[in-house]
Amino acid sequence: MENSLEFKAQVSLLADAGARLAARGWLPARAGHFSARLDDRHIVVSAPGRQKDMLDENDFIIVDLEGNLLSPAERTPSPETFLHIIMYRRDKDLGAVLHTHSANATVLSRQLPGGLHLSDYEVLRELPVVQYPAEGIDVPVFANDPNVQQLAAQVDDRMSRQPDLAGYLIAGHGLYTWSHTVETAIQRVEAFEFMFECEILARQLHP
Amino acid sequence: MENSLEFKAQVSLLADAGARLAARGWLPARAGHFSARLDDRHIVVSAPGRQKDMLDENDFIIVDLEGNLLSPAERTPSPETFLHIIMYRRDKDLGAVLHTHSANATVLSRQLPGGLHLSDYEVLRELPVVQYPAEGIDVPVFANDPNVQQLAAQVDDRMSRQPDLAGYLIAGHGLYTWSHTVETAIQRVEAFEFMFECEILARQLHP
Amino acid sequence: MENSLEFKAQVSLLADAGARLAARGWLPARAGHFSARLDDRHIVVSAPGRQKDMLDENDFIIVDLEGNLLSPAERTPSPETFLHIIMYRRDKDLGAVLHTHSANATVLSRQLPGGLHLSDYEVLRELPVVQYPAEGIDVPVFANDPNVQQLAAQVDDRMSRQPDLAGYLIAGHGLYTWSHTVETAIQRVEAFEFMFECEILARQLHP
Amino acid sequence: MENSLEFKAQVSLLADAGARLAARGWLPARAGHFSARLDDRHIVVSAPGRQKDMLDENDFIIVDLEGNLLSPAERTPSPETFLHIIMYRRDKDLGAVLHTHSANATVLSRQLPGGLHLSDYEVLRELPVVQYPAEGIDVPVFANDPNVQQLAAQVDDRMSRQPDLAGYLIAGHGLYTWSHTVETAIQRVEAFEFMFECEILARQLHP
Repeated sequence: MENSLEFKAQVSLLADAGARLAARGWLPARAGHFSARLDDRHIVVSAPGRQKDMLDENDFIIVDLEGNLLSPAERTPSPETFLHIIMYRRDKDLGAVLHTHSANATVLSRQLPGGLHLSDYEVLRELPVVQYPAEGIDVPVFANDPNVQQLAAQVDDRMSRQPDLAGYLIAGHGLYTWSHTVETAIQRVEAFEFMFECEILARQLHP
Repeated sequence: MENSLEFKAQVSLLADAGARLAARGWLPARAGHFSARLDDRHIVVSAPGRQKDMLDENDFIIVDLEGNLLSPAERTPSPETFLHIIMYRRDKDLGAVLHTHSANATVLSRQLPGGLHLSDYEVLRELPVVQYPAEGIDVPVFANDPNVQQLAAQVDDRMSRQPDLAGYLIAGHGLYTWSHTVETAIQRVEAFEFMFECEILARQLHP
Repeated sequence: MENSLEFKAQVSLLADAGARLAARGWLPARAGHFSARLDDRHIVVSAPGRQKDMLDENDFIIVDLEGNLLSPAERTPSPETFLHIIMYRRDKDLGAVLHTHSANATVLSRQLPGGLHLSDYEVLRELPVVQYPAEGIDVPVFANDPNVQQLAAQVDDRMSRQPDLAGYLIAGHGLYTWSHTVETAIQRVEAFEFMFECEILARQLHP
Repeated sequence: MENSLEFKAQVSLLADAGARLAARGWLPARAGHFSARLDDRHIVVSAPGRQKDMLDENDFIIVDLEGNLLSPAERTPSPETFLHIIMYRRDKDLGAVLHTHSANATVLSRQLPGGLHLSDYEVLRELPVVQYPAEGIDVPVFANDPNVQQLAAQVDDRMSRQPDLAGYLIAGHGLYTWSHTVETAIQRVEAFEFMFECEILARQLHP
């Protein structure tokens, strides 16, 4: 499967995403975690331990939607893989999940444990659930549970109650968002990060 | 007309503008909207739905100054096109309109519904209406009306009362500015964005 | 003289300086003004009206230290040229004067009309007059007089009283600094801009 | 020894580190100081006086762990060399020491003479001593003693009491951190600088 055209195409898109998003400073050190769908039952996901601005085929593993490793044999899926799998299980049209780690997202996620409301931003139109910017969306913040499977269960539970969620934050840990393709998922990262930057700036101004 | 030298030249300048302004972080996701004049009655304008740092000929449409699409047949002008057309109708020497979407402009436009006064900046000399920086200019802020034709009518009305306006903000949506050529319009974007950055910084300092 | 090796060498260094400093966002729109010495009585100085990240030989003029234009015939020295000339007259070993225009410098210069004191920064060692960071330096701020020759006279007068000045600010207009060579003048710009960024950040923090 | 493969390999890695970290704005002017181990008793260390984004073989010297210069004959080790040597003496597996000089680190180091506590950041996992982000680490701040050997003695003393230290700040002067290889030391710089940026942002927000 790691020789398939689909694998090569998705890895190439995810590597480009890494370079693009790292250039903005949103993937410090080796933070960040990317995935894309290969077929109904398989995804490709980045392995831990590499700078995200220089990813290649050797930095990815293939897992099925139960979390079993398919290839390469010598790698181990990181626990964060489950934060990706739960999303692909819910929506067969989902094509990509991107996790970035900006300073703005990190600071907001630490200061707003109850979550963040975003409204009256034109870029909200990038999120499919929003028709008019005035509507706004809620971005939940989850505590950074060192037990990632437990964290994944919490996210999954929240998705069941709020299926139109467009993204969420983990405290001190950054953003998860997703879309039908890698390209549109990148747009969502940029839209979220733009709004996070605005929210930080607004909170710095004197009244 | 999409084979004319003028079309190719203006598209090339607008694509360069997109790359230059996106590199500053002023065109997040697929935000931003650019246009340039082709002749007395026609303009080329960016179509929605593409990252503004990688525009090519396929990302533009040709419309006349009544808003009728000339080419290509399969595209649709976005409602924002009217925010461009109203400017070209007013001034036959106008050559380009650029709409950018920076975090600084977005935050100021949300916090200052009554508009912004800019003075004592040397870069004000980039704006033709200003002879001495101490004079200053007013930058109006319009509410982000989801009905763009209604919004365009408001801008048009304001231009009738204040014909020497150099640019304006839409709340939560960014900057519109214009000039005789694409090159000088880029300078105006840079001048405005520089002053917006200064205005944000000044409001963050402790007295 | 515009065919001399010295002219070509200095223009090449100033063009590189423009690209390097513009990449940091310190030369918005067409702001900034650069010069370098050609010989005892002549300097090359940037002409107004070009983005400073794409300078070439056509963007420079040659003047003598009385402000007379030597070449090319069709260009006019901008009044800012006198802010350069006064420095070369004072010190025959001076090789370059760089004027940059960052948001941080602009905001500080507008808020601190009485000038700025910088101390306890390690990068102060880049400035020849400072032996230990704890000593510190004063950076005067001059009002942005639209009569540039009058402004130049004020700077000249201040230099007579404080000959070891390493740089100064003009309100709303940015930094002037200088050194023996273009390369070391770039280092001084970077040292000053770094300290301006720190001064802005420090004034934003809550006690 | 300056012809050895190990010298060329380490210089190449340190030059890449310089370009990468300078691009983030963390090495203003000629600030910063890098070293890597050659063998049990020798290290290569950057000489002062060059922009850190354009280092080559001529910008490095070889010293032994007593501080004696081995090559090239005409250069002088800077006093900062002792801040590197003390680290290699302590840990024979240590491979690299990087000193960067960001505005965020500089401002924090000036405002927090008692040091900084970092906790609940996911990127803390980049630091080997931290198993769970909630644990946190202490980052000491040393006064910027112009007598660098005295400063090195203070650091050495602190390391004896706290051998699992992952990095420290010098007031007004920046960060020192280290690791087994140049590559992993870069990751630690990025992790520290990311947390410094977050700490600055958090202190700018209104409660």
